[in-house]
Amino acid sequence: MIIVMKPDSPESEIENIIGEVKQWQLTPEKIQGTTQVVIGLVGDTATMEISRIQELSPWIQEVLRVGKPFKRASLEFRHGHYSEVVVNTPNGPVPFGKNHPVVVVAGPCSVENEEMIIETAKRVKAAGAHFLRGGAYKPRTSPYAFQGHGESALELLAAARAATGLGIITEVMDTADLEKVAEVADVIQVGARNMQNFSLLKKVGAQDKPVLLKRGMAATIDDWLMAAEYILASGNNNVILCERGIRTFDQKYTRNTLDLSVIPVLRDLTHLPMMIDASHGTGKSDYVPSMSIAALAAGADSLMIEVHPNPAKALSDGPQSLTPEKFDRLMQELSVIGKTVGRWSQPAVALA
Amino acid sequence: MIIVMKPDSPESEIENIIGEVKQWQLTPEKIQGTTQVVIGLVGDTATMEISRIQELSPWIQEVLRVGKPFKRASLEFRHGHYSEVVVNTPNGPVPFGKNHPVVVVAGPCSVENEEMIIETAKRVKAAGAHFLRGGAYKPRTSPYAFQGHGESALELLAAARAATGLGIITEVMDTADLEKVAEVADVIQVGARNMQNFSLLKKVGAQDKPVLLKRGMAATIDDWLMAAEYILASGNNNVILCERGIRTFDQKYTRNTLDLSVIPVLRDLTHLPMMIDASHGTGKSDYVPSMSIAALAAGADSLMIEVHPNPAKALSDGPQSLTPEKFDRLMQELSVIGKTVGRWSQPAVALA
Amino acid sequence: MIIVMKPDSPESEIENIIGEVKQWQLTPEKIQGTTQVVIGLVGDTATMEISRIQELSPWIQEVLRVGKPFKRASLEFRHGHYSEVVVNTPNGPVPFGKNHPVVVVAGPCSVENEEMIIETAKRVKAAGAHFLRGGAYKPRTSPYAFQGHGESALELLAAARAATGLGIITEVMDTADLEKVAEVADVIQVGARNMQNFSLLKKVGAQDKPVLLKRGMAATIDDWLMAAEYILASGNNNVILCERGIRTFDQKYTRNTLDLSVIPVLRDLTHLPMMIDASHGTGKSDYVPSMSIAALAAGADSLMIEVHPNPAKALSDGPQSLTPEKFDRLMQELSVIGKTVGRWSQPAVALA
Amino acid sequence: MIIVMKPDSPESEIENIIGEVKQWQLTPEKIQGTTQVVIGLVGDTATMEISRIQELSPWIQEVLRVGKPFKRASLEFRHGHYSEVVVNTPNGPVPFGKNHPVVVVAGPCSVENEEMIIETAKRVKAAGAHFLRGGAYKPRTSPYAFQGHGESALELLAAARAATGLGIITEVMDTADLEKVAEVADVIQVGARNMQNFSLLKKVGAQDKPVLLKRGMAATIDDWLMAAEYILASGNNNVILCERGIRTFDQKYTRNTLDLSVIPVLRDLTHLPMMIDASHGTGKSDYVPSMSIAALAAGADSLMIEVHPNPAKALSDGPQSLTPEKFDRLMQELSVIGKTVGRWSQPAVALA
Repeated sequence: MIIVMKPDSPESEIENIIGEVKQWQLTPEKIQGTTQVVIGLVGDTATMEISRIQELSPWIQEVLRVGKPFKRASLEFRHGHYSEVVVNTPNGPVPFGKNHPVVVVAGPCSVENEEMIIETAKRVKAAGAHFLRGGAYKPRTSPYAFQGHGESALELLAAARAATGLGIITEVMDTADLEKVAEVADVIQVGARNMQNFSLLKKVGAQDKPVLLKRGMAATIDDWLMAAEYILASGNNNVILCERGIRTFDQKYTRNTLDLSVIPVLRDLTHLPMMIDASHGTGKSDYVPSMSIAALAAGADSLMIEVHPNPAKALSDGPQSLTPEKFDRLMQELSVIGKTVGRWSQPAVALA
Repeated sequence: MIIVMKPDSPESEIENIIGEVKQWQLTPEKIQGTTQVVIGLVGDTATMEISRIQELSPWIQEVLRVGKPFKRASLEFRHGHYSEVVVNTPNGPVPFGKNHPVVVVAGPCSVENEEMIIETAKRVKAAGAHFLRGGAYKPRTSPYAFQGHGESALELLAAARAATGLGIITEVMDTADLEKVAEVADVIQVGARNMQNFSLLKKVGAQDKPVLLKRGMAATIDDWLMAAEYILASGNNNVILCERGIRTFDQKYTRNTLDLSVIPVLRDLTHLPMMIDASHGTGKSDYVPSMSIAALAAGADSLMIEVHPNPAKALSDGPQSLTPEKFDRLMQELSVIGKTVGRWSQPAVALA
Repeated sequence: MIIVMKPDSPESEIENIIGEVKQWQLTPEKIQGTTQVVIGLVGDTATMEISRIQELSPWIQEVLRVGKPFKRASLEFRHGHYSEVVVNTPNGPVPFGKNHPVVVVAGPCSVENEEMIIETAKRVKAAGAHFLRGGAYKPRTSPYAFQGHGESALELLAAARAATGLGIITEVMDTADLEKVAEVADVIQVGARNMQNFSLLKKVGAQDKPVLLKRGMAATIDDWLMAAEYILASGNNNVILCERGIRTFDQKYTRNTLDLSVIPVLRDLTHLPMMIDASHGTGKSDYVPSMSIAALAAGADSLMIEVHPNPAKALSDGPQSLTPEKFDRLMQELSVIGKTVGRWSQPAVALA
Repeated sequence: MIIVMKPDSPESEIENIIGEVKQWQLTPEKIQGTTQVVIGLVGDTATMEISRIQELSPWIQEVLRVGKPFKRASLEFRHGHYSEVVVNTPNGPVPFGKNHPVVVVAGPCSVENEEMIIETAKRVKAAGAHFLRGGAYKPRTSPYAFQGHGESALELLAAARAATGLGIITEVMDTADLEKVAEVADVIQVGARNMQNFSLLKKVGAQDKPVLLKRGMAATIDDWLMAAEYILASGNNNVILCERGIRTFDQKYTRNTLDLSVIPVLRDLTHLPMMIDASHGTGKSDYVPSMSIAALAAGADSLMIEVHPNPAKALSDGPQSLTPEKFDRLMQELSVIGKTVGRWSQPAVALA
């Protein structure tokens, strides 16, 4: 940490700060600039809050952090080794990570009925997907919109899992539902709107299933990694980060702005695997193929793609869902790029 | 609702849409433009989702909503009459609303210990505040930061209430804690990070205590009013909206961008009372007075102001807290403007 | 400046940087932290670019600036004394600044014809305005929209000036027009879209008329003050800053988000006077009164308010213009608050 | 255009609007909804301003545009045929467009001296680039930063062109410099900060050289295409759009947020070719390769990549420049993906 004092700060104030800081087992080092004094704090400041220091004196102009605010999520924490999150599915273990083939997660926004979810599961499996996504509990902007079938949808997901062997990814919205969701899900999703629902983060961190953590609409990279840190600090090391578009000033042609630059940025900062969801990221099915291909080419570890057997009749998010036919075509295109960049799984795995 | 068809849409597709729409008890009216067809949907479309319609055909260019997506929160729902939310406090009922004096809510970010919360309560009461704010459960970006004293802090708030007669406003973060919080709080706060925690919204809507709903960091006005709609639709009519700053591209000198224009905008759209929190809105105590005065002059119904007996030692949010002395001075300045605009409560009330 | 090295930077790299920096007449001071080295640069770094330093080595993690990137615009540059910008108008000198009454600038978006501009000038003068605003050259999003009457409109502004004695504020869009504009204008406006048109900034800085510098739609406070610095560094000290709303994620009910917190922030950072334009800031005439009143209460030095004799027939920006009657009423309300906060000019001045 | 009236609008007001609108040669069609009236305007409204209509009555709730605000830039204007912009360079004509190989533009941020620019030109040509970029006039946030060598740098660009046969892309910042720039440049760049410098747009539109139009930092897609429309409407059809990152709430790890979703969006909306500048888009050389590869995979027509022989000594934007060695490697990777997607030029062309 570095404390920058305001110009003309009284010497007594500086001494005061230095005294306080020493009590925190930190070694202060003072640099006398031409107009301002700067105090470097040497020691373990990783989990120290900036605001705690700022409050020490009204003469403090700014407190700057050297190093990152997150710790367990950082690449340094694992000495530069990238994590792999291995998920056990009926079809066998599927690893997410930098050194593994890209993992494709596909399925409808919400689970509507048995026939549709099983049909979709079979179609996406045949096309090469490794996981089925589908919402039982749906966060909807309007209280009058379809809120998901809840518990009964979880049963349908279990049936689709049994029928296809695909792993299941589904969202939990309430700590009260966690146990039920964890019974069915192979990966538990925390949605964008709950990214800073810290109670929920602690509870998914205190159970065993891997967690897919979507980025909040206005979450900085640091906010997002700090949310992951909540889960890691609660004892669960299996966290996958999912970019799904951020909110910017232009929402006319795309619902969100898909921030693909997180791919190299996260690779620099964290050991955790990352997924790109171009369906929510753009909100329009026409834009999903090119953005999914771009994500794969840029190095994403996993792709989430919404697929619905009949988007025109979907109970939610139809406009961003691909038909199974379009998904087949996209998987074909992805496989070409995926093989080129060495991130495509062998047919044997896809068909396992 | 208005459906805008793409140029050169096939006639059969248009007929198809018209057929579907009639099944929904809506009357479609077609306008043939020079290049595009537009279909107006006459009937009750208030709670209909745009995406449901958009999915009807790939030839639909856009679906535009006429009227607002929210209903119970709208000013029209109460035929232009503004709500008043009356909160019973030991000192007597305190009404929030357009036709009432401005209500001042003050107190520390978090409840730290008995002495500090009771001292603060006494000081802010003496200065004319009507409510004490103070966090028992604290949403913090970092898992390593102070998370609030939880249940024991609720007891201290109850003690401060008993000691001063002030109403209590405190935050609930988890549906599991709602009952405990509701026992102590006169107004239950839903924080910015939980504004779209729909499980929580439904549950605070299903109980009786008034709810203070903070605006999310990236919430549009519509998102915010839809969140209020969740509470209203669940049966609780006592909702107060609180602006606390939004996230924009400039976060160097203020933590958030306080959007004071919500004051006239909300007055146009909704009957609900509104509060402005300049402490979170700016993040710096030096900027709180001018922004609180501006909010009052612009017509806010209530002000939230963080006050801490010793900001330099605060466990959270010290940099944005006023000292009791600075709060006294600000209340003095507010009273001058408040009297000028006819929104200041008589001393008799402040001292009740 | 502070250089933060990446963890495990080679000692030779650090020595290298220290060597380079010494050649720039700076004194490097090294702090050895537990995982990272930090190098403080002592000396005159105010006008040094961060990127120049960052390029010294790929082992540099970050370069942090201590102090501000602007110099002449800073409050320190004038040792804490606030500037006053005094503009000579036919009615006498009008000072803008912290220690002067609020200055009101009113008039239409664009100059449409002689009758309308002279009528408007008379009406706003009668209501107490000190300046007439009106566009001769108009920046319009669409090439098909009315672009202003150009040179002939400048003549009409001169006529309105002669008829009322009001000072004239009008925009320059092209360096080629500067001379013509400067002949008529008492204050030359640089619009939001040209805030970083550096050629234009240098040229308005190299002439004598005071300059009104509007904040760009996505300009940070630092960007804005650096744009002012261009004018100041070119020799013109008479700069007034004008906030007119920034672009954020919500543009449904207001065209821009008026950032009133710039009032206390700028007061902290710069000696320059500041103006608030609630007409562009909100884009809706209904919201202009409350936001103008808020700006005055918060301490703005000047207000810009669009007034049009017949907004329904305006050639541009009608929806945000007040009628003369509404402007009269607003001036009445402003005078009440203005007197309360001691920032309202005596009638004698308004009628001078 | 669609006019949405407020609930309970008086019939006389509606008749009034209908009367006005007929005078504009438009056919109004009225739809009577359950609470609101909607009026469709049939006729040529493409170049009509929304605000002109909104001003017709205070009872108008909203005016919605059917179809796009731009015309010449729209894909419909060319009946679904994509433009190609063919630039004549000493090495032969280079076409930009959907049906052509990707065009690579490389070079330093600014032209520093003869040796560096010629060396860079030779290196990027050898690696397969088609154009040399390099700034003679540089828009810099600070007046104290290097502003470019101006006219003398133009001569050096001409020398590099002569030495290598590469086409030249360089920026014009001031209408006064246009002629000089056009003498040397094969493509004239309008920078992000001047995207809405309408005087400059009109003047580059009135000359013959192709124009590269960078997206403004806070420009919506519509704003950007309207800026292109200025150039097209002034008579110059050779416009290339360049995405270079937008400003969002997170600027810690990337300077801007590169919006790659413009690739499919622009393809839907406009016939104009598009370029992606990942160097400015991310601001960090480490992130340029993956984002350039993503852009190519997603279908961009052209890539701009900053290359500097010695980034550590660059006079501007060093941190985002690749060394020639890294550029060689990136071109190698691009060629693999480019061949896979069928957008890579034959060696014969690159060496022409």
